[in-house]
Amino acid sequence: MDKIEHIGIAVKSLKDAAPLYERLLGYKSYKKEEIASENVVTEFFKVGESKIELLEASSAESAINGFIEKRGEGIHHIAFAVDDIVKEMARLKSEGFQLLSDNPKRGADNKLVCFVHPKSSHGVLIELCQEIKQSEFLP
Amino acid sequence: MDKIEHIGIAVKSLKDAAPLYERLLGYKSYKKEEIASENVVTEFFKVGESKIELLEASSAESAINGFIEKRGEGIHHIAFAVDDIVKEMARLKSEGFQLLSDNPKRGADNKLVCFVHPKSSHGVLIELCQEIKQSEFLP
Repeated sequence: MDKIEHIGIAVKSLKDAAPLYERLLGYKSYKKEEIASENVVTEFFKVGESKIELLEASSAESAINGFIEKRGEGIHHIAFAVDDIVKEMARLKSEGFQLLSDNPKRGADNKLVCFVHPKSSHGVLIELCQEIKQSEFLP
Repeated sequence: MDKIEHIGIAVKSLKDAAPLYERLLGYKSYKKEEIASENVVTEFFKVGESKIELLEASSAESAINGFIEKRGEGIHHIAFAVDDIVKEMARLKSEGFQLLSDNPKRGADNKLVCFVHPKSSHGVLIELCQEIKQSEFLP
């Protein structure tokens, strides 16, 4: 794991939460992006080499809705940057971690992503993120 | 805010959780430290410019116990590195954030720290961390 790529925070409304994070950090977000396949709209703030990713549900089926209903707004996941996601997924599987998909998926911010089940990591939802290179096979 | 200094993760037992994070990250923790004033024992892993801080309660009154009873093990707080914690506390107060103490306290890992109430930041417990400089007045 090379660095913390981002921390995902579940919020009810980007319209309310984004201005609050602007005041907290002292600067504006650099990107807003909808990920239709995940039923979320995201807004990103840079912090050093990492990012804060605010996540709002874009439909009733979104996992973000379920999270907020159960636990309230708050920190949803930690994403680690990896150089080779397929290799890292194989390594984690061999270490006994349960992955939420067999293959990486396309995530926000030009990334291939995969999640580790929080049951296999003491309640923490962990995401692996690999930057998509131009030459990369894209699922 | 200069960078994400660390992510705090509440665990029931460092003895169980630390080996799991070793397998996840692929390397060992660099430090274990008790903070008696906060009733916690901490264990740190480096990740890029940031750290993962595992937190175990060291007594029944620890806030970590309360957190785990209410929400289960999981991500407890995000800590941001700041250059001047007193100045940053004043700025956040003026922006309407509710701080958990009027003055910075000594935290783990040679830091002055202060927390922002999660009620004023959409459910996220936020810590400010400033490295203690040799010349610094120490509370």
